Amino acid sequence: MKKISILGSTGSVGKQTLEVVRENRNEFDIVGLTCNNNIELLKKQIYEFNPSVVCVMNKEKAYELKLSMVNDVKILTGIDGLIEIAKNLENDILVTAVVGSVGLMPTYEAVKLGIDIALANKETLVTAGEIIMSEAKKSGSKILPVDSEHSAIFQSLLGNKHKEIDKLILTASGGAFLNKTLEELKYVEIEDALKHPNWEMGKKITIDSATMMNKGLEVIEAKWLFDIDVENIEVVIHPQSIIHSMVQYIDSSVIAQLGLPDMKLPIVFALNYPFRKFNDYKRLDLTEIQKLTFFKPDLVKYKALNLAYKAIKIGGTMPVVLNTANEVYVKKFLCKEISFLDIVNYVEIEMNNHKVIMNPTMDDIIMIEKEIRKKLE
Amino acid sequence: MKKISILGSTGSVGKQTLEVVRENRNEFDIVGLTCNNNIELLKKQIYEFNPSVVCVMNKEKAYELKLSMVNDVKILTGIDGLIEIAKNLENDILVTAVVGSVGLMPTYEAVKLGIDIALANKETLVTAGEIIMSEAKKSGSKILPVDSEHSAIFQSLLGNKHKEIDKLILTASGGAFLNKTLEELKYVEIEDALKHPNWEMGKKITIDSATMMNKGLEVIEAKWLFDIDVENIEVVIHPQSIIHSMVQYIDSSVIAQLGLPDMKLPIVFALNYPFRKFNDYKRLDLTEIQKLTFFKPDLVKYKALNLAYKAIKIGGTMPVVLNTANEVYVKKFLCKEISFLDIVNYVEIEMNNHKVIMNPTMDDIIMIEKEIRKKLE
Repeated sequence: MKKISILGSTGSVGKQTLEVVRENRNEFDIVGLTCNNNIELLKKQIYEFNPSVVCVMNKEKAYELKLSMVNDVKILTGIDGLIEIAKNLENDILVTAVVGSVGLMPTYEAVKLGIDIALANKETLVTAGEIIMSEAKKSGSKILPVDSEHSAIFQSLLGNKHKEIDKLILTASGGAFLNKTLEELKYVEIEDALKHPNWEMGKKITIDSATMMNKGLEVIEAKWLFDIDVENIEVVIHPQSIIHSMVQYIDSSVIAQLGLPDMKLPIVFALNYPFRKFNDYKRLDLTEIQKLTFFKPDLVKYKALNLAYKAIKIGGTMPVVLNTANEVYVKKFLCKEISFLDIVNYVEIEMNNHKVIMNPTMDDIIMIEKEIRKKLE
Repeated sequence: MKKISILGSTGSVGKQTLEVVRENRNEFDIVGLTCNNNIELLKKQIYEFNPSVVCVMNKEKAYELKLSMVNDVKILTGIDGLIEIAKNLENDILVTAVVGSVGLMPTYEAVKLGIDIALANKETLVTAGEIIMSEAKKSGSKILPVDSEHSAIFQSLLGNKHKEIDKLILTASGGAFLNKTLEELKYVEIEDALKHPNWEMGKKITIDSATMMNKGLEVIEAKWLFDIDVENIEVVIHPQSIIHSMVQYIDSSVIAQLGLPDMKLPIVFALNYPFRKFNDYKRLDLTEIQKLTFFKPDLVKYKALNLAYKAIKIGGTMPVVLNTANEVYVKKFLCKEISFLDIVNYVEIEMNNHKVIMNPTMDDIIMIEKEIRKKLE
C-alpha cells in the first residue's frame, strides 16, 4: 500500500487523484487531505477515504468542520496545518494539487524530508525551482510531474541519457482563443476564457491557458524539472492535445508521449511510478482522431509566453514576479476588474518595475511574493 | 572502434550504412563487405573502407574482381563466402542488408556466435523468427532492427517493462497506391509501383510497400523481435511517415518515435546502441510538416496484410511460404510476367496449397523455401 496525502483534495486534480485511489483501493491509502473552504466535499472525502488528518485553510470553516464531524480525524488549519500534513513521514507520496504559491512551503518541507512529490502545483518550480531541485537531489525525493506535458517528457526520457537530449518540445493546445486575433482578444469575456477546448481544469489554469501564461510557466518548470536550458525548450501549438510533449535527441530521433486529454493519465503514472498499472480508460485511437496539426505560436498574440522566457532568462526573483503578478491579475480578471489582455500587460509592467535578487533564498522568494501581492491586491 | 561487416553493401541500406561509417570514421571500422554482382561499386568501397575480406555472390563476378584488384583483400564467393563473413569473430556488429531469404543462414550463424546483428533483412525473422530469437537469447546476440518501424518500437520500449505493453502500433505510409481503388490497381504498371511517396528504397521493398506485404512482413517480424502476440500488433495508415511506430502501454499511455523519413536514422541508432550519437541531419519540425493523418487500412484492397496475419497465426512453415512465394511473384511482376494484383493473389493460392510443418527446424525452413522456389520460378 502506498500512503498518500493530497494538498488540495477538493480541487480538480485532487478530485481526480481520489478517483484514481478509488479505482485502486488495494494499492493506495489516504493519510491526509486538505481544502480551502469546501468542507462539504472534504467531509464526504473523509467518510470515504478515512484520512487520519485533514487541513482546512479557512479557520472558521475548519472550526465548522470540527463541530460537525463524528470521525476522530485530526483537523488542522492554515499554512501550518498544510505544512504539517506535507511533512508527515507516513507519506510515501505527497500530491501537491493546491493552486498558487501556497503550495511552495509545504512542498519544500516534504522534499527536504525525502518524501516523493506528485507535483501538480506549477508555482513551486516556477518560483523556487533551483532550491527545490537541489534539495530533492540531496534528500532523494523524487519529483513526479502531474501534468500532461511534463509527464509526457518524463516518459519520453525513460531509458535515455540526459546528455543525449537535444531539446524538449512542449505542445500547447492554444487554449480558448486559439482562433481569435489579437484585436478580438480585446473584447473577450470571462465566460469565453473559461471554455477550454480539450481539458477540464480549474479556473486559474484555464485562464492561463487562454493567455498561454500556462505554457510559459511550464517552460520554466521544464527547465528545472529536467535540467535543460530554456534555449532548448520549444513550444509548438497542437490544438488536438494528443501528443502531450516530446523530446528530440542528438541523433535526430524524437520520442513523444501520446494519449487522450485526461488528467488521470499523468496522475496514474505519477502514483504508480516506476511501474505502469493497468486501467480500462478509453484508449487513444489515432484513426478516430484522424488528424494532428502543428504550428508555431504567435508570440505577439501570446505575449505571456515571451514574458516567461524573458523572466527565466533574467532569473533570480524575476519568475516570482511573473508568477505572483499573474496570479493577482488573473483573479482581478475573474472579478471583472480588468480586461483579458490587461492580465499579461500588467504582469509585464510589474516585471519591468522589479529589481531582481539573484540566487534568492527561500525567504527572499516569499518576501518578494508577499510584497507584490500587497502592492497589487 | 566498433568493427562492422555489411552483408549487401551495394544495396540501398548497405550504401547508407557506409555513409554513416564515412561520417564517423573514428567510431567504426569495416571488416567485411558483400555484393551480388555490382563489383564496380564494391571495388570503390574496398578502396575507401579497406575491408580485410569481401564476398561476391556471383562466381564469375568474383573472379573478375580478383583479376582487377591490387589490394590484398580476401575475395570469397557464394553463400559459403557470405556465411564466412558473417561468422567472422572480429565483427562487433553484422549488418544484414541483403534482400531476400539469402540473409537467413549467415544471420543465423552469426547469432549463434553471439555477434550483434543490425537487421535490415526482413526474411530472417519472418521465416525463422522463433529459432533466431531463441538462439540470440542463448548466445547473448542483440538483434537491433534497421528499419524505421521496428527501430521506433525498440526506442519506444526503452526504459519500459515488457509486461506493461498493451499493443504495438505499426504505422504504414500506404505505399505508392494509397489513393487508388482496388479496381484501378488492376491496371497499374511497374513504373507506378516503384514510386514510393516517402522512402528511397530497393525495388523489392518498394513493390512490397505498394501491396502492403511489406507491412505484413513487419507485423511478423515485430511479433518475434518484441515477443508480442500478433493479436496485439496493429497497423495504422499514416501517409506522412513521420510517426515511425508506437507502443501503447497498459496504463493507456502511448510512446512514439518520430523523425523525418530517412533510413540513416535507424542505421545510426543500431550502430551506436546503447548510445545516441550526435549528427547534423535535418531535424524534424512538425510546424513545417503541419499535419499528420491516420486511418485504418482497407483490408480488401491490402489483402497482403490479411494474408500475413493469417500466415503467422497458422504458424509453422506458413510464413516461409508467404515470404518465398511473395519474393518469386514480385520478381515476376518486375519482369512483367504477371500483373500487380496477381502478386498477392498467387501468394494466397500457394498458401492454400501448403501443408504446414509445425515447429520447423532450420533445415525444414530451407527445404520448404527451395521447394516453393523450384515450383514457382
